[in-house]
Amino acid sequence: MKYGIAIFPSKKVQDEANSYRKRYDPHYALIPPHITLKEPFEADEQKLESEIVPELENIAKGITPFNVEITKVSSFSPVTNTIYLKINPTEPIIKLNEKLRDGTLPDNQEYSFVPHITIAQKLSDEEFSDVYGSLSMDSFNIVDKVDRFQLLYQLENGAWSVYETFRFGDQ
Amino acid sequence: MKYGIAIFPSKKVQDEANSYRKRYDPHYALIPPHITLKEPFEADEQKLESEIVPELENIAKGITPFNVEITKVSSFSPVTNTIYLKINPTEPIIKLNEKLRDGTLPDNQEYSFVPHITIAQKLSDEEFSDVYGSLSMDSFNIVDKVDRFQLLYQLENGAWSVYETFRFGDQ
Repeated sequence: MKYGIAIFPSKKVQDEANSYRKRYDPHYALIPPHITLKEPFEADEQKLESEIVPELENIAKGITPFNVEITKVSSFSPVTNTIYLKINPTEPIIKLNEKLRDGTLPDNQEYSFVPHITIAQKLSDEEFSDVYGSLSMDSFNIVDKVDRFQLLYQLENGAWSVYETFRFGDQ
Repeated sequence: MKYGIAIFPSKKVQDEANSYRKRYDPHYALIPPHITLKEPFEADEQKLESEIVPELENIAKGITPFNVEITKVSSFSPVTNTIYLKINPTEPIIKLNEKLRDGTLPDNQEYSFVPHITIAQKLSDEEFSDVYGSLSMDSFNIVDKVDRFQLLYQLENGAWSVYETFRFGDQ
């Protein structure tokens, strides 16, 4: 089964991201707006329960809730035409990503971690220029509290379903 | 904010349900296949954290994982043209629904509890006759383990995002 780990921001931020995703992101219907913490990885269900879930519980317990800040959009151009809400790469989220590559967890990350919420992808070059040209002028002033992450699995249709929530701290 | 409580069945059952939902359910993109345990209710976030989440944790702790069985489809016709995978109304799921209407939780259930996974809805009368005529001949032999439920909230676009998972037992 294919699993992934993500943070879902608050409803307010999800609603804002969806206002763009609806028009510009073909993955709009597959998963709510999210910050990917760990790229999709394969695991069998037994190993998931015996090793991965306990490890994720341990990691979550050791984390204090933190804020993420969004002040602008950015893009992965010219690699891809993806546009995203840029999460300022502060220490807590960088450390969390590192912890999710340690221990018994698969380290399947190919590129350096760029925390973000995708709002547009798979645009044509022309669409990309238009949309990014317009959005990159906007400034955002979003501060959002993060106090949990979620383990998800992918269905055959490409959509993601939540397997479990991991709250930070000894809650 | 509007919240709901649901069970997501295993990937296998979700994939099977989605093979119908894709064609026949306009809510296909809003939420994965699910068994609604508690109809949507309004709550403010403070009350949710101080009262509802602790109550749900307590309820989940007191439950032993159980199986649900699906042997056929059924429908809410003539009330609505909804077609669903019928969950045999065994004691554990009936009791769980009752617990979710007790204590500090809002009792907002208008009809008796019919556990089900919707696979088609908002069909025209003609479509309904065709689809139900065909599906009601099929027999299913699904046994699925339930060991958690999920608290969700609804986004402005109608889609549902998971707030938290509650595992059964002292896990």
